[in-house]
Amino acid sequence: MCGVFGAYSASGAPVLEDVYLGLSALQHRGQLSAGVAWTQGGSVHIKKGLGLVHEALQQNELAEIEAHAAIGHVRYATAGGTERENSQPLGANYAQGPVAIAHNGNLTNATALSSYLANRGAIFQTTCDTETIIQLMAHQPSTVQLEALENALTKITGAYSIAVLFEDCLIAARDPWGFRPLALGRRGDDYFVASESCAFEIIGAEFLRDVEAGEILVIDRRGVISRRLPITAQRLRHCSFEYVYFARPDSVIDGRSVYAARKNLGACLARGGKCPQNSIVAGMPDSGTLAALGLAQEAGVPFEAGVVRNRYVGRTFIQPTQRVREAGVKIKLNPQPGIFDGKEAVIVDDSIVRGTTAGRTVSTIRGAGAKKVHMRIASPPVRYPCYYGIDTPSSEELIAAQSDIEELRVKIGADTLRYISCEELCESIGLPREELCTACFDGGYLDEEESGGRLEV
Amino acid sequence: MCGVFGAYSASGAPVLEDVYLGLSALQHRGQLSAGVAWTQGGSVHIKKGLGLVHEALQQNELAEIEAHAAIGHVRYATAGGTERENSQPLGANYAQGPVAIAHNGNLTNATALSSYLANRGAIFQTTCDTETIIQLMAHQPSTVQLEALENALTKITGAYSIAVLFEDCLIAARDPWGFRPLALGRRGDDYFVASESCAFEIIGAEFLRDVEAGEILVIDRRGVISRRLPITAQRLRHCSFEYVYFARPDSVIDGRSVYAARKNLGACLARGGKCPQNSIVAGMPDSGTLAALGLAQEAGVPFEAGVVRNRYVGRTFIQPTQRVREAGVKIKLNPQPGIFDGKEAVIVDDSIVRGTTAGRTVSTIRGAGAKKVHMRIASPPVRYPCYYGIDTPSSEELIAAQSDIEELRVKIGADTLRYISCEELCESIGLPREELCTACFDGGYLDEEESGGRLEV
Amino acid sequence: MCGVFGAYSASGAPVLEDVYLGLSALQHRGQLSAGVAWTQGGSVHIKKGLGLVHEALQQNELAEIEAHAAIGHVRYATAGGTERENSQPLGANYAQGPVAIAHNGNLTNATALSSYLANRGAIFQTTCDTETIIQLMAHQPSTVQLEALENALTKITGAYSIAVLFEDCLIAARDPWGFRPLALGRRGDDYFVASESCAFEIIGAEFLRDVEAGEILVIDRRGVISRRLPITAQRLRHCSFEYVYFARPDSVIDGRSVYAARKNLGACLARGGKCPQNSIVAGMPDSGTLAALGLAQEAGVPFEAGVVRNRYVGRTFIQPTQRVREAGVKIKLNPQPGIFDGKEAVIVDDSIVRGTTAGRTVSTIRGAGAKKVHMRIASPPVRYPCYYGIDTPSSEELIAAQSDIEELRVKIGADTLRYISCEELCESIGLPREELCTACFDGGYLDEEESGGRLEV
Amino acid sequence: MCGVFGAYSASGAPVLEDVYLGLSALQHRGQLSAGVAWTQGGSVHIKKGLGLVHEALQQNELAEIEAHAAIGHVRYATAGGTERENSQPLGANYAQGPVAIAHNGNLTNATALSSYLANRGAIFQTTCDTETIIQLMAHQPSTVQLEALENALTKITGAYSIAVLFEDCLIAARDPWGFRPLALGRRGDDYFVASESCAFEIIGAEFLRDVEAGEILVIDRRGVISRRLPITAQRLRHCSFEYVYFARPDSVIDGRSVYAARKNLGACLARGGKCPQNSIVAGMPDSGTLAALGLAQEAGVPFEAGVVRNRYVGRTFIQPTQRVREAGVKIKLNPQPGIFDGKEAVIVDDSIVRGTTAGRTVSTIRGAGAKKVHMRIASPPVRYPCYYGIDTPSSEELIAAQSDIEELRVKIGADTLRYISCEELCESIGLPREELCTACFDGGYLDEEESGGRLEV
Ligand SMILES: Nc1ncnc2c1ncn2[C@@H]1O[C@H](COP(=O)(O)OP(=O)(O)O)[C@@H](O)[C@H]1O
Ligand SMILES: Nc1ncnc2c1ncn2[C@@H]1O[C@H](COP(=O)(O)OP(=O)(O)O)[C@@H](O)[C@H]1O
Ligand SMILES: Nc1ncnc2c1ncn2[C@@H]1O[C@H](COP(=O)(O)OP(=O)(O)O)[C@@H](O)[C@H]1O
Ligand SMILES: Nc1ncnc2c1ncn2[C@@H]1O[C@H](COP(=O)(O)OP(=O)(O)O)[C@@H](O)[C@H]1O
Ligand code: SF4
Ligand code: SF4
Ligand code: SF4
Ligand code: SF4
Ligand SMILES: [Mg+2]
Ligand SMILES: [Mg+2]
Ligand SMILES: [Mg+2]
Ligand SMILES: [Mg+2]
Repeated sequence: MCGVFGAYSASGAPVLEDVYLGLSALQHRGQLSAGVAWTQGGSVHIKKGLGLVHEALQQNELAEIEAHAAIGHVRYATAGGTERENSQPLGANYAQGPVAIAHNGNLTNATALSSYLANRGAIFQTTCDTETIIQLMAHQPSTVQLEALENALTKITGAYSIAVLFEDCLIAARDPWGFRPLALGRRGDDYFVASESCAFEIIGAEFLRDVEAGEILVIDRRGVISRRLPITAQRLRHCSFEYVYFARPDSVIDGRSVYAARKNLGACLARGGKCPQNSIVAGMPDSGTLAALGLAQEAGVPFEAGVVRNRYVGRTFIQPTQRVREAGVKIKLNPQPGIFDGKEAVIVDDSIVRGTTAGRTVSTIRGAGAKKVHMRIASPPVRYPCYYGIDTPSSEELIAAQSDIEELRVKIGADTLRYISCEELCESIGLPREELCTACFDGGYLDEEESGGRLEV
Repeated sequence: MCGVFGAYSASGAPVLEDVYLGLSALQHRGQLSAGVAWTQGGSVHIKKGLGLVHEALQQNELAEIEAHAAIGHVRYATAGGTERENSQPLGANYAQGPVAIAHNGNLTNATALSSYLANRGAIFQTTCDTETIIQLMAHQPSTVQLEALENALTKITGAYSIAVLFEDCLIAARDPWGFRPLALGRRGDDYFVASESCAFEIIGAEFLRDVEAGEILVIDRRGVISRRLPITAQRLRHCSFEYVYFARPDSVIDGRSVYAARKNLGACLARGGKCPQNSIVAGMPDSGTLAALGLAQEAGVPFEAGVVRNRYVGRTFIQPTQRVREAGVKIKLNPQPGIFDGKEAVIVDDSIVRGTTAGRTVSTIRGAGAKKVHMRIASPPVRYPCYYGIDTPSSEELIAAQSDIEELRVKIGADTLRYISCEELCESIGLPREELCTACFDGGYLDEEESGGRLEV
Repeated sequence: MCGVFGAYSASGAPVLEDVYLGLSALQHRGQLSAGVAWTQGGSVHIKKGLGLVHEALQQNELAEIEAHAAIGHVRYATAGGTERENSQPLGANYAQGPVAIAHNGNLTNATALSSYLANRGAIFQTTCDTETIIQLMAHQPSTVQLEALENALTKITGAYSIAVLFEDCLIAARDPWGFRPLALGRRGDDYFVASESCAFEIIGAEFLRDVEAGEILVIDRRGVISRRLPITAQRLRHCSFEYVYFARPDSVIDGRSVYAARKNLGACLARGGKCPQNSIVAGMPDSGTLAALGLAQEAGVPFEAGVVRNRYVGRTFIQPTQRVREAGVKIKLNPQPGIFDGKEAVIVDDSIVRGTTAGRTVSTIRGAGAKKVHMRIASPPVRYPCYYGIDTPSSEELIAAQSDIEELRVKIGADTLRYISCEELCESIGLPREELCTACFDGGYLDEEESGGRLEV
Repeated sequence: MCGVFGAYSASGAPVLEDVYLGLSALQHRGQLSAGVAWTQGGSVHIKKGLGLVHEALQQNELAEIEAHAAIGHVRYATAGGTERENSQPLGANYAQGPVAIAHNGNLTNATALSSYLANRGAIFQTTCDTETIIQLMAHQPSTVQLEALENALTKITGAYSIAVLFEDCLIAARDPWGFRPLALGRRGDDYFVASESCAFEIIGAEFLRDVEAGEILVIDRRGVISRRLPITAQRLRHCSFEYVYFARPDSVIDGRSVYAARKNLGACLARGGKCPQNSIVAGMPDSGTLAALGLAQEAGVPFEAGVVRNRYVGRTFIQPTQRVREAGVKIKLNPQPGIFDGKEAVIVDDSIVRGTTAGRTVSTIRGAGAKKVHMRIASPPVRYPCYYGIDTPSSEELIAAQSDIEELRVKIGADTLRYISCEELCESIGLPREELCTACFDGGYLDEEESGGRLEV
């Protein structure tokens, strides 16, 4: 998962500090690296680094750059490895001019395209599928960059929400299925695009609308022009997992509030079965909190902040030494002392991936005095890998792909375990099932036909 | 406010990684600097640095040090300025041997003691009152370090919870009034002291008991011995603000759960006046959340996560440039979109200090569509500065010292504003008023008599 | 000017520390950046950074890498600008496999080649002419890397001494004119190539021979194979300025000792005109020292270390603030107090470029008490820019291109000024004039015919 | 060995950049750490760090500080260990005001003074004898700082050249024997003190005179006042080793040119015995170069730059890994190839300490083709440790203390080995033997009587 941001000021105001702030608001979408790109004197300039936005970039430095158009990117783990050169944005100064791209998503036919290009002399600098888009552009006959980009996009398939920078023009494009979110905002004469609407608040911009699936926005001095890719998808495939886990609760994606979706998922769990008497509801922070609240309110059972997360004890703060491994998950999640004593605990999490966290949580809560521990998961079982930009493990590592629900309950040691169905997921989000991707839950991937014969994976 | 930690392993196991982890769990008590001290080859060694624990110290490096006794410190703002040399622990190798001290609190007669010592040739390296304790020790006739320390402690007055390291011995001491918390823990043969009990969980130790007011624990190869300062306080003065704001909710201080105290404070607010119909309750994250939950549950009104805090947008992440100042408090706290529309909002915070946050919050929530905004504060008005270790502004800057409650309501723009009383505060905590300090609320400071004639301030 | 180094261990021993040491011995050839490349798991790995070798690279880190073939580079100023991405070695993983190149020299037809390549979809990552070689390779039909390299080399003209790394093979090649030096060394089964023979001593290797003009050495598990470029130069053009200024005195280049050449240059100056009575000879450190010694010995006049250079007061040590500019050249060169009093000073420098140093020196020496100051320059006047890899200013800035020798004498304020002729230069080096380049002295550049029609500049 | 520098601008101009430049010129006297101190707002400010001046300090930062009085220090190895807190200047804000000291030398009664002070409550922050002077001042009854300093100086014995800073006054003082050099300079109304006169050139100041043994200079707004310590030395003891090795050749110390002294030492060696026919003279760079030149000129034998030192291959550049140790001294000193072939080599060094360098040199030169290798040492054998501020090894490690000259010749493998006598040393310097210290050569240390009964060592 990644986050992209783009800014264009028609009035010529410098925008790199806005990009910095926007990326900070998208930090939850990627903590591995961060970068920005802008054009100056006819060529692309890029600054990027490893770590969080404030570690990778210098706000001060950016604030002093006089560029009125820029893009930015935060990066999660990717197929491309963690090396510095795979950080984004990627940029190039090729024959037709400067170009930089920030990409959220995953191309499913990148391998085929790469060997096609390599045989034509292309030298790849990265192992990142985003570079494929740039190389495709450079190998187009067209000397007009926008045309070259559109031609390139018709050759690729899979998930992409991209922000592209040309010499004096910002482009935003979303794949025909609309896998990953992409939003358009405005502040006076300045336009912004962002992976999520929550990034507009911080820069004082207003959220205008989602970029549509298959839409290409061309933003320059004259304003915003909307174009369409000459590819029509048979159906939409907005990622349902964004609502479950990835997106920030204060975002609105494709017309639906993430906050509302999560509370609905909890309520749905409540409707799925009564909570025992003398029980309390707690969410796994932070991802399970809102579903827990929704469950508690629907069920009329008290909600407690029963699991504490130490904000300062994360991946970057404490290294996994021997002593730390012994201390186990405790370094991140502690039960609130005294809360669970003699109660039945209803613990809500957004999903179970490998199951390690879930198992430890159950035993920790039991150790804190709970008579019983009931796990409630605010999504269907994750049984299939995602090929559309989210870094899920292979099926072998997905615990729900390896066990049925009763086996899984035994493995994690819970007294009861309950999930919701795909239908309930879609209802909670509030979109028809044929507009949502649920492939990681039900295996319904994009097929040969849907991808216009460019399927590969 | 600061946090202290100490570790002694009778079995001779290295303890510096435990100190690192313990300090991480106390990180909320101070983010300005962090440090550790240990003894080796008869002299004190100290590592300290600015910033968070993981910025100031190297976990790796510490893990390799073979010291079985050590102390550590995290530091908030202090009177001593932000310079590096004021970071703690402070250490010295003086005639009687090595000594290091980590101190949470504030001496009220430090100025008088300093000039007394300077006239006897003392050279102060820092402007930190902790150094006074060390200099006093060096100017005692006694050649036994423990005696010198006890003599020194009888000369000082005010708040101190200290961890002291001698060549092969760890001392923990708490002032006769018990202002700041201090807890004792154990893991097998290893003993630990920490500002808060929440620091034991992370290292797999169990919380044994609070260090008592006026108690001195001497921990060495033979175990733990309890001694008493030859000073008896007329009454206890445990800081009530620890329960309101400073301590972590999963700590238990002087026998009372911080979590329970905060929920009680909210319930107390609920009993103080009905919530309007069609209202929702939200807490200011994170300090107001538990009181909000307590209020919502007692009042039977829905609790919502109505205010979002961007975890990655804090002091260290974003610099207060012009552009950022314009964006104002939004960079930290955003209203959840859609939640407040057409509702009356009951917003709960733990306290109001200068009032800036409160004012902005009210207008933000109103801007998010709330019909009315009702502020509820889970403590009495803060009207007096604290001289016992908490960095509060002077009365001129304390908004509640400058206005009565109705004026304050008008200033922050709320429709209603309600506080609780000092009695309600003590009841919510669960300790008698004469065992709690409430001086910043009611001005009842330690007087000449209580401080045995050593008052100065 | 730059330095290149390559290492191949047939026995499979790790060589990156050797490359580090070799680059250190070539540090005088470039202080702007340093880098190394090696192959591992079928792809190229590169580490590079700005500054001196020990600033840009971590000896420790390199020592731990298990690569038995590697190349390295130190970089002076270049046309490509100082940006990080122009540092070398350059590497790429293209269709036929991994490749990395370290280049000393300057291509004279790079611009023409770049646009040819860009029109075929090539995306340039740097503004460095070395990348042209890699892009040319990628656009060759041949799937054998060595062939692709040889094809590429036949398309370029100008100066290049290169070390190239393929997956398991080290290549060293020198242009058909032999502009820049390149030497081959051996230690047991391990082979090394280096810009100068002085780099072998430090790693305990022995200097075998110069790589010849137009020669390609292929070094792999089976040993060293010598191949020839299918281009025959009409004449050789070994850079004479290497002997005058750039190379280290303990190097031997194309069969001639740099040390001997410099002493001969001084002797030649002595034969050009008697030194006045009561005179002393001093060299401008360090570049003029050996010629001064040669002059003094030939003339029978005492040599003195009359000008002191503060080793710790260089470009990297002291910043050119206002105060420092006032102090002028003094921060680097001071006259030895007492030495010049009442004497005539014969000051020897290797060359005059812009003339600033020369002018300041004369007045400084006069200020130190010299009755007269005689400047002697151990090379002909520099009147033309170099297009073959040495960063000389344009003719406008070359003081000897703007004035005749008498005018120049007046400008720098010397009592007398003497140069040597191009013939004397070649004699002093000990090579025939038609094997040496003297273009920066006499303007005799490579012409259309000599460069096989690929001339551009 | 260390270097001190002080600056006072009566016109109120900022002087910290001057101190930075002055310290750079004294860099040869200490490379372990560097620091500066100034007073501002009534208290001492200090910046110091490890490494060279430009590594330890930021020229930029210093240039912006508005202090018109300041001192600085560069530090070699010392008894105090390499820890950061032993870096100088040392400073303190004690009862009578701010004070900072930079010290070159070594007190011989520091241990006795320390325990005296510790028993009076003094807490030592460092293990550096300079702190003793500050603690002594703090324990004087006098409230006038200058008096307290003078009282303190009468209690100490040994070598000290110090620069002291009070609130608005710079003090320079030299011990009664004048062991270490100290010089006074002026630029307009600004006065400077420096360990060596060479430090004045770089800042455009003129060298006025040496500070005399036992003299105290008080420099403030009114100019320079000279005072005398109430201690008269029986004889002077200027360190002869400064002329031999430590000082920069362009300094003049106690009226004698270091450059002239070194050339005289070489001439003296020449007079001690004829050079063989067909021989060449070379100096060990850089310390043996001038003596070699003197020898060659006196003997009429050609001087050659026969040993090359790689400027970029020093302690800080290359780490002593296994591979590097194998390469041995070669990484620093290489023979000039071709020079020694078939010749007899006369190699001159300033001194032999442990003998390792000497032994390696002989075998290297022989390996470079010399028929015979004659070692000439431009000082008497070093047989005794120095207690006056120079870090020499103990007698066990001093090779000349363990062997007579013939044995030593055999150990280092030279064909002949010759030293000079103490008398010749003094003559070469040009001062009477009873004004020079030669203790490390002849064991004639300061005795009980000379040190006024304060001897300890
Ligand atoms: N693709 C993903 N990448 C990273 N974290 C995820 C992903 N999907 C869900 N998560 C989060 O990780 C948690 C998974 O926990 P779980 O499967 O129990 O343990 P584990 O930590 O072993 O993977 C979920 O609660 C969710 O918050
Ligand atoms: N001594 C203190 N130091 C720092 N923060 C405090 C202190 N006491 C309370 N706080 C926190 O700061 C908040 C005070 O907010 P408020 O007075 O409205 O605005 P301001 O941010 O202007 O001080 C409280 O909600 C509380 O969480
Ligand atoms: N191409 C070059 N780049 C850098 N330095 C050079 C070059 N050629 C010669 N030099 C050195 O620079 C010195 C030139 O000095 P000079 O022309 O008097 O003054 P300036 O410092 O103004 O260029 C020469 O003595 C030589 O040592
Ligand atoms: N006190 C000292 N500290 C450091 N170096 C010194 C000192 N005295 C002399 N030297 C330098 O060190 C060299 C000593 O070399 P030598 O005794 O042969 O070998 P080693 O390097 O084993 O000590 C001398 O030539 C001199 O330049
Ligand atoms: S497979 Fe799952 S995570 Fe991937 S896009 Fe579809 S719903 Fe989202
Ligand atoms: S004054 Fe307030 S903050 Fe200070 S100790 Fe007393 S209750 Fe705590
Ligand atoms: S022009 Fe001058 S510097 Fe350039 S290669 Fe020829 S001789 Fe060397
Ligand atoms: S003992 Fe030697 S080094 Fe020390 S002061 Fe005397 S002459 Fe100098
Ligand atoms: Mg989770
Ligand atoms: Mg708060
Ligand atoms: Mg020069
Ligand atoms: Mg030496």
